[in-house]
Amino acid sequence: MIPFNKPYLTGKEGHYIYQAVLSGKISGDGIFTKKCHDFFEKKYGFNKCLLTTSCTDALEMAALLIDIQPGDEVIMPSYTFVSTSNAFVLRGAKIVFCDSRTDHPGIDEDAIEALITDKTKAIVPVHYAGVACDMDKIMDLAAKYKLYVVEDAAQAIDSYYTGRDGVKRPLGSIGHLAAFSFHETKNIMAGEGGMLVINDQKFADRAEIIREKGTNRSKFFRGEVDKYGWVDMGSSFLPSDIIAAFLYAQIENIDEIQRRRKEIWHAYSRLLQPLQDKGIIGLPVIPDFASNNGHMFYITLKDIDARTALIADLKANNIYAVFHYLSLHKSPFYEAKHDGRVLPETDRYTDCILRLPMFYELTEDNIKSISEVIINYFV
Amino acid sequence: MIPFNKPYLTGKEGHYIYQAVLSGKISGDGIFTKKCHDFFEKKYGFNKCLLTTSCTDALEMAALLIDIQPGDEVIMPSYTFVSTSNAFVLRGAKIVFCDSRTDHPGIDEDAIEALITDKTKAIVPVHYAGVACDMDKIMDLAAKYKLYVVEDAAQAIDSYYTGRDGVKRPLGSIGHLAAFSFHETKNIMAGEGGMLVINDQKFADRAEIIREKGTNRSKFFRGEVDKYGWVDMGSSFLPSDIIAAFLYAQIENIDEIQRRRKEIWHAYSRLLQPLQDKGIIGLPVIPDFASNNGHMFYITLKDIDARTALIADLKANNIYAVFHYLSLHKSPFYEAKHDGRVLPETDRYTDCILRLPMFYELTEDNIKSISEVIINYFV
Repeated sequence: MIPFNKPYLTGKEGHYIYQAVLSGKISGDGIFTKKCHDFFEKKYGFNKCLLTTSCTDALEMAALLIDIQPGDEVIMPSYTFVSTSNAFVLRGAKIVFCDSRTDHPGIDEDAIEALITDKTKAIVPVHYAGVACDMDKIMDLAAKYKLYVVEDAAQAIDSYYTGRDGVKRPLGSIGHLAAFSFHETKNIMAGEGGMLVINDQKFADRAEIIREKGTNRSKFFRGEVDKYGWVDMGSSFLPSDIIAAFLYAQIENIDEIQRRRKEIWHAYSRLLQPLQDKGIIGLPVIPDFASNNGHMFYITLKDIDARTALIADLKANNIYAVFHYLSLHKSPFYEAKHDGRVLPETDRYTDCILRLPMFYELTEDNIKSISEVIINYFV
Repeated sequence: MIPFNKPYLTGKEGHYIYQAVLSGKISGDGIFTKKCHDFFEKKYGFNKCLLTTSCTDALEMAALLIDIQPGDEVIMPSYTFVSTSNAFVLRGAKIVFCDSRTDHPGIDEDAIEALITDKTKAIVPVHYAGVACDMDKIMDLAAKYKLYVVEDAAQAIDSYYTGRDGVKRPLGSIGHLAAFSFHETKNIMAGEGGMLVINDQKFADRAEIIREKGTNRSKFFRGEVDKYGWVDMGSSFLPSDIIAAFLYAQIENIDEIQRRRKEIWHAYSRLLQPLQDKGIIGLPVIPDFASNNGHMFYITLKDIDARTALIADLKANNIYAVFHYLSLHKSPFYEAKHDGRVLPETDRYTDCILRLPMFYELTEDNIKSISEVIINYFV
């Protein structure tokens, strides 16, 4: 049986968890949380990092930080995980769903400007499969209309965007704020986990407060105030240091994990190329401005029936391939709230994308047999 | 040095975490999450349990479940942790703060009725130090005025309330909903962690949905629907199974942990009784209807100066004792929103409560030397 995902242990997780416990502090912001913050800030040049219990929670922090009020509009793709939307809906925002690009499921950057109104407060690009959106276009719109940009970088660790200035920037370092996921399906993971990146320094102090249940506890521990109290809204967004300890064992190995995942991605791509050449399936497109972080390998089928049939065939061969997002603008929760625009690319990806097994320990034999089952199914 | 708290390892935490990882699933709702749910449902007869990333998150789930709308009023003590309030403030509630009892910091049950208006939606009693509020009085008010009761049972695991019918009921099983904490300062803990208890069955389905980012994923995994989608607001409230695995190693030992903590509590009480007899300090009061779960040992000093001086003296002897809650109705965030009522008992507890070191591995010698330092300070 080849599962869709298999959490990978680098070997030091248990050791670090034990160290965290021996430190006498396994609530939030212990030694490993600080190690993780330092790592990400140094490796990717992020201004300030704060671990959270999930990417969902990081997005909720972002919605609080940019002070979303009832009726504010937030533009995002409809082909995304529900948390992208929920985080803003919880603050009363109206979600304005934008269609995806024709060549890949990221937001259609050229369709955003027509959706901006005087109520628009933010754009939330989602770097689907770790593949960058065209951030120059999005940041230009944000500057022109004074909007915030919150990068949903859930899948985008260790991926890059090369702007028109030729500079290659890590995803998550470009918008005012960015959210990462360390859910077990991600390249580096901690079961459940996430991180908020604060690139716009003006949010840094309040981010600490909101994450500490609306208290100025962080300032207190740094000796900047002599007692701490309730100064703002907030929640408990910080994860146990057990989670950070686990994550630290993963990030120490990020270069090796990334190397292998990209190798797997390219092996799939090579083996399935003939099917694309024959027009039977589509392979992922990586635009010139984007990098590939080996997060996901997906193929696009011609319609939902073709996908359903292929999933069944793979399953009959003990291979678990999955689809995911259903157009949010057509969801039971949001359909009546959506403005009725048709989003054809979103609907196409909803019906046609199939994600193949992708995890560090997937072997060459696995990749070969998965590809063979797919090829034999079609030819 | 005697710290205020020291996380206690039962010895099996690492083993269970390893088992969780080997299971191939360490995101939320894995095998250990289910074991924890089963344990709590069986041991305490809770109708339905759902682990969360924190007690804060469990309270936020409760606020979503009872459908708090902007302007709704929620009655709670002012002497509590900020999360009790924040969870409802995030939904737009107006917090109506109630004073504490004279004999202990729990909400003054007899002062609640005067605060009820036609906007009141819920009462949130906090079982301070694991000591029950008089739930008969509170549930009677809830029935009379059709209000919801959300028990903030953060500190109240394995504690009980004996009602006027003579039946002894576990705290957390009485209100419509209840929230527990497994923060590292709690009797059983997982660093950060919490649990929502759903006693009113009408909330059970929606609780699963809200906890799964507003999707009906739980129904999907039980085969009750053939695909899952976005059906409601929600967030990612579920913890990694790593957290649940850690917690499971703790709850297997709950009876022994509780035995020892109560022993420590009684040792303090015995040794410090003479100071209370002389009117120098106050010892905790456990009303007849309440049990003692050995969560916290606190003393009350005559004023804030006396407390500050004693903390300094203890620190000079390498003993770390702490105070905590500051009256929420006087906080920078809420003072201007509070209706101006004076809450004298709340203010007294804010100034006068001192928590002594309390953890499983505190030795008899520790307790003796802490008590001696306090006695020598005063006599």
